[in-house]
Amino acid sequence: VTVVQSVRWSPEGGAVRIIDQRRLPAEFSERDLRTVDDAVAAIRSLAVRGAPAIGIVAAMALALAARNLTGASDFRARLEADAAILRSARPTAVNLAWAVNRVLAAARDSTDASDAASRMEAEADAILAEDRDMCRRIGEFGAALLEDGMTVLTHCNTGALATAGIGTALGVIYVAHEQGKRLRVIAPETRPLLQGSRLTAWELARAGIDVTVVSDSAVASLLHSGEVDCCIVGADRITRLGDVANKIGTLSHAIVANACATPFYVAAPTSTVDGATESGGEIRIEERSPAEILVEGAPPGIHVRNPAFDVTPSGLVSAIITDRGVFYPPYDFGDAPR
Amino acid sequence: VTVVQSVRWSPEGGAVRIIDQRRLPAEFSERDLRTVDDAVAAIRSLAVRGAPAIGIVAAMALALAARNLTGASDFRARLEADAAILRSARPTAVNLAWAVNRVLAAARDSTDASDAASRMEAEADAILAEDRDMCRRIGEFGAALLEDGMTVLTHCNTGALATAGIGTALGVIYVAHEQGKRLRVIAPETRPLLQGSRLTAWELARAGIDVTVVSDSAVASLLHSGEVDCCIVGADRITRLGDVANKIGTLSHAIVANACATPFYVAAPTSTVDGATESGGEIRIEERSPAEILVEGAPPGIHVRNPAFDVTPSGLVSAIITDRGVFYPPYDFGDAPR
Repeated sequence: VTVVQSVRWSPEGGAVRIIDQRRLPAEFSERDLRTVDDAVAAIRSLAVRGAPAIGIVAAMALALAARNLTGASDFRARLEADAAILRSARPTAVNLAWAVNRVLAAARDSTDASDAASRMEAEADAILAEDRDMCRRIGEFGAALLEDGMTVLTHCNTGALATAGIGTALGVIYVAHEQGKRLRVIAPETRPLLQGSRLTAWELARAGIDVTVVSDSAVASLLHSGEVDCCIVGADRITRLGDVANKIGTLSHAIVANACATPFYVAAPTSTVDGATESGGEIRIEERSPAEILVEGAPPGIHVRNPAFDVTPSGLVSAIITDRGVFYPPYDFGDAPR
Repeated sequence: VTVVQSVRWSPEGGAVRIIDQRRLPAEFSERDLRTVDDAVAAIRSLAVRGAPAIGIVAAMALALAARNLTGASDFRARLEADAAILRSARPTAVNLAWAVNRVLAAARDSTDASDAASRMEAEADAILAEDRDMCRRIGEFGAALLEDGMTVLTHCNTGALATAGIGTALGVIYVAHEQGKRLRVIAPETRPLLQGSRLTAWELARAGIDVTVVSDSAVASLLHSGEVDCCIVGADRITRLGDVANKIGTLSHAIVANACATPFYVAAPTSTVDGATESGGEIRIEERSPAEILVEGAPPGIHVRNPAFDVTPSGLVSAIITDRGVFYPPYDFGDAPR
């Protein structure tokens, strides 16, 4: 399949070029991020989203910042400050801090900003290339679980728009499609920001894959009717024991899939495994603005809860598809990436 | 509590006056329905919705039609035709056909349209008054299940806007509130048409009841965290064995509530029990327009499934709260209303 490139260096240099995902599918437009503040704003506003993609944007933005600090004697302190700002742009996805820490570590031995920038740019390039490779390997390991004619339920968007490559859960679907397996994909719209109906449906339709959009609320009746063969979702953070933080709604699909004896798979690069966290209860869940939920004209006094993620206990996860292979419970990822 | 009157005779006569629910909460406006076609359009477009309310509107509209047939010798055939049109306006709620059949039967012995109209108006008035009484009794039976300080999850809108009285599931909450029990209500927004965030939040806030709106997808994480004490939803049709057709998303909440050992109650008048239907698989589920789901700019070729209802098996229902008392499994409603 040919997919879009959601994150890359601007051809003119001096910027990170992203697809502005807030405007899809009505408008395909790209934006250049020139500063750490630009990158933080793009990540916070979800102009760029998806755990791997935001990590790569942050890594590239930090390398750009180093380039702009050429000649500054306090470059290291300023990079550390920028790194802290980038890491806090969104709290739940572990890839963000992982990628920022990695580019920062690449410049550990640099004695000037110019050298640091070169090393950090190379490291950001490496992260991007590795992410693309990891997507492909996740896709290949996962595609073995899919058979011709299957109906697959996903959630949110975990494709080319969320990564540097073909995606994680959608990467599995893309590789199976390349292998000639005819799949039907159910894409829940994914309220409140509609990544399913806006992004996943757009990506899959472009790639010629049969996609059906449903409200998040309709998933249970489809699973209960037996017409879904398996579920594949992505992850923003996976704990050492296999609990999975992912887009709000994932837990609901997982509980219903289990009640209906439908396999529930998670697909993610090993950089999503947070070896420092044992169980899902320790994960900080981002709470987003009530404005994403409230309707026009709502009277005062109405409360809103708007968690962006939920945590699916490992016991509900049939398997975790990674770039190192498919893991089954009880989960043990060996040497976690950090 | 003081609640709005969603359906009544227009004070000027010759029309059924409804609150146009499509405009809430941004705008409170009423509309007069003068013909059967007006009523069908209002029911189809969800200007008026809620199983009891649409039954009452259809009953009143049919009585109006009889009044307008004064002097017509073929009045009975024309009323039968109007009744068929009204019954088919929406297929899932049983109250619609039940109320239409009841006003029609009231004019069984009439030999002219004027007499038929008088009997049908009286019967429509009786249905409206009975619905108001049933709501109150449902509320009183159900309120005994709620305790001070509880957090209650509902779904869609089952309040004054959905009935002629204080509602069904919301009626239980209103009566408990009148009894001095402080409740916190979680209202899922209820995609695609947002009856939860638009209507339930508006109704409860007006009545001074603490309400929190969430995306439908966030319900599982709230249930899983243990902060919800019970769920109370309405019903559009209940089969003889206790399977419950209700707004899409109900099944998901029921499965998750059961997985979390949280009581899951259904509140409905006995007119919602369809004695002619044994199990949920026999219920025709209305499929609504893809336009309710598709986003602006969606490329061609994307499929949509948009069922308006789902069926919750009786095994997931802890109790059914009716105007005749609270029923527990295995369900036996005695002499079903038809």
